[in-house]
Amino acid sequence: MPEAVAILQRTPAVLDSLLRGLPDGWIAAHEGDQTWSPFDVVGHLIHGERTDWIPRARLILEHGEARPFDTFDRFAQFAASEGRTRASLLDEFAALRAKSLDELAALGLTDVDLDRRGRHPALGVVTLRQLLATWVAHDLDHVVQISRVLARQYSDEVGPWRAYLRIVSGTQG
Amino acid sequence: MPEAVAILQRTPAVLDSLLRGLPDGWIAAHEGDQTWSPFDVVGHLIHGERTDWIPRARLILEHGEARPFDTFDRFAQFAASEGRTRASLLDEFAALRAKSLDELAALGLTDVDLDRRGRHPALGVVTLRQLLATWVAHDLDHVVQISRVLARQYSDEVGPWRAYLRIVSGTQG
Repeated sequence: MPEAVAILQRTPAVLDSLLRGLPDGWIAAHEGDQTWSPFDVVGHLIHGERTDWIPRARLILEHGEARPFDTFDRFAQFAASEGRTRASLLDEFAALRAKSLDELAALGLTDVDLDRRGRHPALGVVTLRQLLATWVAHDLDHVVQISRVLARQYSDEVGPWRAYLRIVSGTQG
Repeated sequence: MPEAVAILQRTPAVLDSLLRGLPDGWIAAHEGDQTWSPFDVVGHLIHGERTDWIPRARLILEHGEARPFDTFDRFAQFAASEGRTRASLLDEFAALRAKSLDELAALGLTDVDLDRRGRHPALGVVTLRQLLATWVAHDLDHVVQISRVLARQYSDEVGPWRAYLRIVSGTQG
């Protein structure tokens, strides 16, 4: 748990360091139709704080497998972020994450709690421990995604070095 | 150029936000034999500041294609980082990067300069513009690598969510 929280509490600052003040072209960059820009990803992370991680943890503790999680809306940010500034999204994500971690600490989870089971609407039975591990990996997955989207804006510009840059060539990472 | 510099100047803070103070287990984590930990990657980036980006830019401006770049030592960090603390590596990377960007600004590169050609020992003819684009993509490639290495420490812990996490399943990102 302390290891997991160490990542979770850093993600807002990581995104802030990377995205705040970055020229607008980078923020709107994406990988083609139906892919997300860094701006979209921050909105997605905000929606996760509001509806996914802590709400699902509470559902597991209160209802176990009896009540499945609500389906997560992967597209909520397109409406929710409309007209918002990047700075306001970064601020909101940081505030919501701090609140989530306060709530997590207040739950005072024991090892027994972490083994409690809930029901994912598509994946079936999951444990609270798996939910928290997924929260961490999901953060990092989106740091990867944002970095990859930014790097791929230079896919052509790097010329022959394309062969050495796994992020550009797509061979890995 | 301003877009490229905007990324380059942010990388030290991104890595600092993610890695400083993170529990030791995360910093030494890797993806198996012959793969790099976050600690190794910071050392590799330091070596790039010392021997790759600005030195190669100067070589292009001064010698063009006549003198190939020195081969970059991808393993230099294993000796150079030995016994160093993570904090000192992060500090050194930040200081070297700031110096590199000062030197880049002092070069006052024109569009004609950016089209100047040099010779990579393996890839052949490259332009200064390609070198600078590669510097940016290389930074982001290693932010991806570090985030991926960290996330994959939870490959088993996420349970059924593995199917949704591209960073863990390895399908992309």
